[in-house]
Amino acid sequence: MESFEITTVDSGIRERKIVPISEEVPLTITVNGRELATLLCSPEYLRNLATGFLYTNGLIREASSLKSLTVDRDRWNVTVDIEGEGLDEEFVFKRIYTSGCGKGVIFHNPLDLINRKRLENDMRVNSTDITALMKTFQKRSEEHQRTRGVHSGALATPEEILIFRDDIGRHNALDKVIGEALYRHTGFPDKILLTSGRISSEILSKVLRCQMPLIVAAGAPTNQAVKLARQANLTLVGRVRGNRMNVYSGEERIC
Amino acid sequence: MESFEITTVDSGIRERKIVPISEEVPLTITVNGRELATLLCSPEYLRNLATGFLYTNGLIREASSLKSLTVDRDRWNVTVDIEGEGLDEEFVFKRIYTSGCGKGVIFHNPLDLINRKRLENDMRVNSTDITALMKTFQKRSEEHQRTRGVHSGALATPEEILIFRDDIGRHNALDKVIGEALYRHTGFPDKILLTSGRISSEILSKVLRCQMPLIVAAGAPTNQAVKLARQANLTLVGRVRGNRMNVYSGEERIC
Repeated sequence: MESFEITTVDSGIRERKIVPISEEVPLTITVNGRELATLLCSPEYLRNLATGFLYTNGLIREASSLKSLTVDRDRWNVTVDIEGEGLDEEFVFKRIYTSGCGKGVIFHNPLDLINRKRLENDMRVNSTDITALMKTFQKRSEEHQRTRGVHSGALATPEEILIFRDDIGRHNALDKVIGEALYRHTGFPDKILLTSGRISSEILSKVLRCQMPLIVAAGAPTNQAVKLARQANLTLVGRVRGNRMNVYSGEERIC
Repeated sequence: MESFEITTVDSGIRERKIVPISEEVPLTITVNGRELATLLCSPEYLRNLATGFLYTNGLIREASSLKSLTVDRDRWNVTVDIEGEGLDEEFVFKRIYTSGCGKGVIFHNPLDLINRKRLENDMRVNSTDITALMKTFQKRSEEHQRTRGVHSGALATPEEILIFRDDIGRHNALDKVIGEALYRHTGFPDKILLTSGRISSEILSKVLRCQMPLIVAAGAPTNQAVKLARQANLTLVGRVRGNRMNVYSGEERIC
């Protein structure tokens, strides 16, 4: 956990508070000299994580299949040598590389490709509008109310929700919203992205890609998401519950 | 949504009920003739999803960059042709292929590599033990209580939690638990996996890989997770809240 000074808002009343936020690190796993995957994860128990990841993805059958496993916490790297033990290593690698990646596709640094200059955007939103938007947003998904199995995403103005999408993956729900916004040519500079989920650096990178000034989440952010939002001058509001919310970055846009 | 007949248990009282469960499909996105990614997603708005995914991953800059986009709902395929438009396509592909995949690494069918025969395991667990385990489990994470930013996973017997791990990713939390179990040689056939999250086919495939008879989740499963659990004769308990729980598969192990 890392401590951040943030602004809390409760029924319009603002307060500065120091709060603990979960850490996120990018861990690259290299197997027999080949880079296999980069996971965004919490920084503890990395030996456990690499071992479990290799096992659940079928590359080892027991812990003793690991000839060596080295954790480098400076470079966030785990280097592993494994036995062949009947597993067709080429086959496994080929499957991963050719079938591609799922909702967790990430680059070494998900923000490498993104314009890192500070966002100049003087949008202002009332905290009471955010409360009202999130109340509507969280009641909007019939599927969530019936199944509890999906996350939601939306594109909104301070007054109303323009596009709303559900998905079993919180990344997918936001990609669906952004995809529809591109077809409708809504533009992003005066819009707000809403999500029912938590915010990692991957989620934040979607907002940055759109150069949207404001993301509002029911869930909590990671430390990397907060840092990136502050660097990019983006407003990050999280843990919205009733009239309460936490403003982790860009509080001058919330009035 | 798809309807399933399941068993609900409330303070030991069992009932058969038909409940709606979210659908999950594997969607493969092919760009300019090359397979880019397979996403596990909800089956609606696939054109939105593919467009948003390509945009947030930097392969297109606007909807008009798509020369064509075809959705094949029989094969769950989206085939896209995009303009070069200054983006170095080789570079983007190379980055994805060489930096590998994050927490959403999946294969075309995550269960291809797994022994699909029905699990023969006559473990029995009292529903009151599950209630007690989940009460302990959900209070156990100090980090979750302070940050709300992590998911938890645990390996348990019906009597107690043996291994407990937190992570910002629910996949990672389970991989950390399973990794530690391999080092400790706990064995899996008489154990229960606990998770604070939802259950997709990827999460279920981890339990199958371990040949564990029982997974218990605070969250809801997808339809594919329920189907796979039934095929594999694995007990899947979800939406545990207080004395209530849903048994989606293998109810004979719950007494």
